[in-house]
Amino acid sequence: MSVSQNDHALGVPNEAELEALYQSLSNWGRWGKDDERGALNHLRPEHCKSAAALVEDGLSLSLAHDLGKQPSPENPIPADHHMLAAGDARDSSGIPGYEASRDYIGAPVHGLGVTHIDALCHMFVRGEMYNGVPASEVRSDGARRNTILSVADGIMGRGVLLDIAAQRGVPYLEANAAIGVAELEAAEERQGDRVGTGDILMVGTGRDARRREQGGVLNPADGMAGLHPECLVWLREREIALLGSDGISDPMPGVGTPNWPFPIHQIGISGMGLHLIDNLALGDLAQACSQRGRWAFLFTLGVLRVPGGTGCPVNPIALL
Amino acid sequence: MSVSQNDHALGVPNEAELEALYQSLSNWGRWGKDDERGALNHLRPEHCKSAAALVEDGLSLSLAHDLGKQPSPENPIPADHHMLAAGDARDSSGIPGYEASRDYIGAPVHGLGVTHIDALCHMFVRGEMYNGVPASEVRSDGARRNTILSVADGIMGRGVLLDIAAQRGVPYLEANAAIGVAELEAAEERQGDRVGTGDILMVGTGRDARRREQGGVLNPADGMAGLHPECLVWLREREIALLGSDGISDPMPGVGTPNWPFPIHQIGISGMGLHLIDNLALGDLAQACSQRGRWAFLFTLGVLRVPGGTGCPVNPIALL
Amino acid sequence: MSVSQNDHALGVPNEAELEALYQSLSNWGRWGKDDERGALNHLRPEHCKSAAALVEDGLSLSLAHDLGKQPSPENPIPADHHMLAAGDARDSSGIPGYEASRDYIGAPVHGLGVTHIDALCHMFVRGEMYNGVPASEVRSDGARRNTILSVADGIMGRGVLLDIAAQRGVPYLEANAAIGVAELEAAEERQGDRVGTGDILMVGTGRDARRREQGGVLNPADGMAGLHPECLVWLREREIALLGSDGISDPMPGVGTPNWPFPIHQIGISGMGLHLIDNLALGDLAQACSQRGRWAFLFTLGVLRVPGGTGCPVNPIALL
Amino acid sequence: MSVSQNDHALGVPNEAELEALYQSLSNWGRWGKDDERGALNHLRPEHCKSAAALVEDGLSLSLAHDLGKQPSPENPIPADHHMLAAGDARDSSGIPGYEASRDYIGAPVHGLGVTHIDALCHMFVRGEMYNGVPASEVRSDGARRNTILSVADGIMGRGVLLDIAAQRGVPYLEANAAIGVAELEAAEERQGDRVGTGDILMVGTGRDARRREQGGVLNPADGMAGLHPECLVWLREREIALLGSDGISDPMPGVGTPNWPFPIHQIGISGMGLHLIDNLALGDLAQACSQRGRWAFLFTLGVLRVPGGTGCPVNPIALL
Repeated sequence: MSVSQNDHALGVPNEAELEALYQSLSNWGRWGKDDERGALNHLRPEHCKSAAALVEDGLSLSLAHDLGKQPSPENPIPADHHMLAAGDARDSSGIPGYEASRDYIGAPVHGLGVTHIDALCHMFVRGEMYNGVPASEVRSDGARRNTILSVADGIMGRGVLLDIAAQRGVPYLEANAAIGVAELEAAEERQGDRVGTGDILMVGTGRDARRREQGGVLNPADGMAGLHPECLVWLREREIALLGSDGISDPMPGVGTPNWPFPIHQIGISGMGLHLIDNLALGDLAQACSQRGRWAFLFTLGVLRVPGGTGCPVNPIALL
Repeated sequence: MSVSQNDHALGVPNEAELEALYQSLSNWGRWGKDDERGALNHLRPEHCKSAAALVEDGLSLSLAHDLGKQPSPENPIPADHHMLAAGDARDSSGIPGYEASRDYIGAPVHGLGVTHIDALCHMFVRGEMYNGVPASEVRSDGARRNTILSVADGIMGRGVLLDIAAQRGVPYLEANAAIGVAELEAAEERQGDRVGTGDILMVGTGRDARRREQGGVLNPADGMAGLHPECLVWLREREIALLGSDGISDPMPGVGTPNWPFPIHQIGISGMGLHLIDNLALGDLAQACSQRGRWAFLFTLGVLRVPGGTGCPVNPIALL
Repeated sequence: MSVSQNDHALGVPNEAELEALYQSLSNWGRWGKDDERGALNHLRPEHCKSAAALVEDGLSLSLAHDLGKQPSPENPIPADHHMLAAGDARDSSGIPGYEASRDYIGAPVHGLGVTHIDALCHMFVRGEMYNGVPASEVRSDGARRNTILSVADGIMGRGVLLDIAAQRGVPYLEANAAIGVAELEAAEERQGDRVGTGDILMVGTGRDARRREQGGVLNPADGMAGLHPECLVWLREREIALLGSDGISDPMPGVGTPNWPFPIHQIGISGMGLHLIDNLALGDLAQACSQRGRWAFLFTLGVLRVPGGTGCPVNPIALL
Repeated sequence: MSVSQNDHALGVPNEAELEALYQSLSNWGRWGKDDERGALNHLRPEHCKSAAALVEDGLSLSLAHDLGKQPSPENPIPADHHMLAAGDARDSSGIPGYEASRDYIGAPVHGLGVTHIDALCHMFVRGEMYNGVPASEVRSDGARRNTILSVADGIMGRGVLLDIAAQRGVPYLEANAAIGVAELEAAEERQGDRVGTGDILMVGTGRDARRREQGGVLNPADGMAGLHPECLVWLREREIALLGSDGISDPMPGVGTPNWPFPIHQIGISGMGLHLIDNLALGDLAQACSQRGRWAFLFTLGVLRVPGGTGCPVNPIALL
C-alpha cells in the first residue's frame, strides 16, 4: 500500500538529533524522584477552576469512538461485549420479581482504534520508563509504577483544540503528514488563542472527514497524520499537561529513525512524562468550536481505576 | 447471617402500594414515545452551565472504587486485568525500537461492587423496560433500545451529596436501613441546600466508614442501606435527573414485596426512566464537602460508548 | 475477489429440492423425542471397541490448528491467551516457595479458523433445531437443549479419512469446489475401504497444501471446498455418526439457495442431528495414512464440559 | 477452619530431605538438553498400542468436571461462558437463511477446581523450570519453552486408577491425608495389577464421595488428600509418564516445608518433568473399574494447541 510522503519541508530528524531531544527534554526528577504524574503537574487547581468558567452553553460532547462487538469504521478491533443475560433471561436472577439484563465489556486497552489514554508505564526507552523506573516494574501481574491510578481522580482542565485541517484549509491531512511548530502556532493565531501552562491540547487532523470521504474501516497501513518530533520542544516550553489527537499524535508510518520509530510516544511519554490520548473523535468538537469561534473548553476525563493498569479506554467529554 | 431490621417507622409497603407507585410515577411517553433518556431530560444545558460555576477550588475527586484483578474490600469481583505485554516483553511489538507494555481490561458491568451506571435497558417490570419497550429488545447480541449510548455525550450537571450518615450523626447506617423522605429533607436543611430540577443526587450512607470499622470484603449477605420506596415520589416531584449511592440505592435485603424486591431499581429505572449509579465511593467527597460547608459540585461522567450496552463501569469525577 | 466456479456437473440444487431433502432426511423422533445425540446414536460401544483394534503403530496425531494470541495461517482469529503470571511474577502466589506461572485461555467457539465441534443447538432451520426443539431454548444465559454436554463423555470410534485431493490427483481442491457422492465412493474404492454405520468421516480437501502454496492467512473471501448437498442422502444411508472436514463441510461460498446457504450445516445438524467438526488439520494425517495404505484409525475427542455450550474448540487425536 | 491432621506414620519431611529429593530425582538432561516432554518420554508407541488393546466394552467416560458460568460443587470458579448469539438472534449472521447460535468460552487454566493439565513451564524451583530452563522464558506474552504444545499430539496410553479410598475401605480420605508408597503398592496388590513404564497413573481419594456427603462447594480451606513426597522416588522408579488425581496430587494444606510447600508439583514437574492433571472426576471411573474388576484402560487426552500456554483445561476420556 502506497502512503503519501511526509512533508519534506520539515526534514527527517536523524538518530543523534532524536537522542539529543530525549536527553534535553527529560523531566525525570523535575517533580521529585517518585513523581508519577509527569507533565500533569503543570495542571493545577486554579487551571481547573478557570477552565470551568469556559462553559457557556452547557453543551457536552463525546470525544470517543464506539467500543463495540462489531468493528466500527474508526475502531476495527471488536470489544468483548457479551450479554450475560438478555431479555429472554429476564427472570434468571434467582430473585423473584427481579427482571434484569446484564453484560460484560472488555477490550485491549491500546488496541488500534480504541480511544484510550496511555499511562506513563506504557512506553519504555531502552528499558526505562518515565522518571527512570525500570521496565521490570511492569510485571506480568500488573505494573508497580507509573500506572493509570496516577490519574484516578480524573483529568479536568482547559482543553484546546488546534484544528490543523482547518488551518491548512483542507478537510483532512494526508496520511503520514507531519505537523510542525509553525503550523501549530499558525493555528493558534487563526483561532485567536494561545496554549500554555496546564493546557490539555487536542490536535485535529480531520481523520473523521477522511473516513467519510474514503469509507471503509481503519487500516494501519493507510497511515495517519501526526506531530513532527520538533513539536516536542514546543510542547515542553508551553508546559502542555496532556496531549491528544484524532490519530496517535505520532505520524504513521513513523517519521523517526530505527531507534525512534514513534518519537512523540517515546520522548513524550518516557522522557517528558506526557500522557497521550489516542484515537480521539474530534469531528463534532471541531464543528462546534468553529461555529462558536472559540476552541477552548472544559475538558473532563475519568478513567477506570485499574490497579497496575497501563492505560484505559476512555470517553473524554468536552463542555462548551 | 443476621441483618439489622429495617426502620419500622416507615412501614413496609405492600404489593398494591408498590403497584400503584409504579403506575402513578410512570414517565412513559412524557418525553415522547421514542425517548431513551428518561429523567435525564430534566438536566438541561443551563443546569450544566450553572453547575460549572460551582467549581471554586478546582479540586477533582474520584467517586469510584478500584476495578482490579485482586478483589478489593468494596469490589470483591475481580476484573479481568491481564497484561498482554509487560516489561519483560518490551521489545515484542515487532517494531524495532518500540518498547511498550499493553494490557486488557474487562468486567461484568453490573458485578457486585463494581461502580457502574445502569442504562435504562437494565431493568424490566413484567417484561417491559422504560417507555414500554419490550424486554425482547435486549437481545443476546446486544440491546436495541434504551442502551448506554443514550448518555454517550456524558452526564454533566449539578451534583449534590446528601450525607445521611452525618444527618443521623453516625459514622454509617446499619445494613438494610431504609432512608425516608423526611430524612432526605432534614439532610437538605442541615446542609442548607435544596435539590431540584436536573440535579444529580448522591445519597451517602457511610459505607466506607462501615468497611473501615468492620474490615473484610463486601459480602451481599451483610446488607446495605438504601432508600425507602416512598422516596420515589419525592425524586419525581423534585425532578431529579440521576440518582447514585454508595450502596445500590435500594436497601439490601430489599424492603419490597415478592413482586417488587428492589423498588428503586424497578420503579425508578423502568417506570421513571431514572438512571442509577451503584457502589459509588463517597467517603472522600463527604469529607471534602463537610470541610467546605457546601455539598454541591460539578458532577462529570463519561461512559464507554458500548453499542447495545446495558450500563458501564464508571469513574465519576466531582469538581469542587 | 474472484472465486473459482463450482463444479457444474453436479448442478445447483434449487429451493424445492433442498426443502425436500430437509424433510426426507429428518431424524427427528428417530431416537426418541428427547434425544440430543442425533447421528451419534449410530456409534455404539462395539464400534468403539473394534476401532481400538485399528491401532497398529501407537502413533497419535493432532487434527487441530493452533489456538493462540497471534493469528495463525489457518486461524486468523486471535484467541484470548493472556499470561496471568509469567516468570517475572514467579513468587506472586502469596505462598512462600511456590513459584508458578498461570494463564488464561478463551476463544469464540465457532470463530473462523478455530478447530471446533458444533453442538446440535448451533443451527436452526426456521427457528427449530434438531428434534424440533425451538431456538428459544438457546437463551442468552446458555442453551437448555442439544448442548455440547451431549458429548461430554467423548467421541471415540472408527475414524476414516477420505482424501479427495488425492482422489482427484491434485494437491488441493479449488475454493468452492463441491464434492459429490460419486467422488466419495471413488475415494473409498481407491483407498480400499467403505464407510458405514457409526463411522466418523473426515473429508480432506488439501486445505493445508493450498496454504503452503498460496501463503497468507485464511480469508473467508478465498472460499473453501466442501460437500455437495446430494451427499446428505449418502451420509444418512451410510449411517455416518460424525462428519468433519479441513474446511467447514459446506463449500464456501455456499452452493445453496437463499434459504439454504449452507445445506450441510442446516440439513445435517438441524435435520439429521449430525455433529460437525470444522477446520480440521488433516495434512499430517493424510500423509500418515497414505504411507501406511490405510485410512482408518481410532478417532478420539474430548470436549470441555461447558453447560449450555453450543460447541467447543477441540483437538481431536487420531491413533494409528 | 480446622483441617484434620496429616498421617503421622509417614512423618513430615524436612527441608534437607526435600532438597535432596529434588537433586536426586532430577531428570534434567536425561532426554537431551532441549527435551520438553520429561517423563512422557517413558510412554512410547508400543505402550499406546498395547493400551488400545485394553478396550473391551467400548465404554467411554469423562474424567472432568463441568466448566461453566455457574460455579459447580467441584469447580467454584465460574468460566467465562458467554452467548454471542442465542436463539433470539438466530437471524443475526447477516447471511439470509443462516440461523445459528454462537458462544465464547474462556477460563483461567489453573483455576481452583478446573480440571486441567500443567505444562512443564507451570512450576519453577528457585527460578528454574524443567531441564534448567530459566523462569524468564515464561514471558508476559507467552512461554517460550516447556509449553503445552509439547503434548499437542495428545497423550494416549495405559491409564491405571489406584483407588486409595477403596484400599482404605472408606468412601473418601480425610482432607490433608498423605498417601505413602506402601499404600500405593497395597492398592496395586488389591487390584491385581502393577503400574510400570509409560503408565498414566490416576490416584483416587474419593473426593466426589466426600462432596456427596458434605455438600457445598469446593473451598480450598477444606483441604484435599494427596501423595506424600516419598512417592516421588517410587514414581520415578516405576517410570510413570503422567500423574493425575481427583485432588491436586499434593495434599492441601501442603505437607512440605517453607521452601517446599507442594513437593509433588515442585519436584515432580520442575525436577522430574512430570506433567500433572489436577481436579479429575474419578468417581464414575472408580465404579466402572470396580464393577469390572480391572483398573487399567486406554487413557486419551487432547489439549487445545495454545502456543506459549502453561497448561490447558481438559476433559480426558477413559476407554474401557
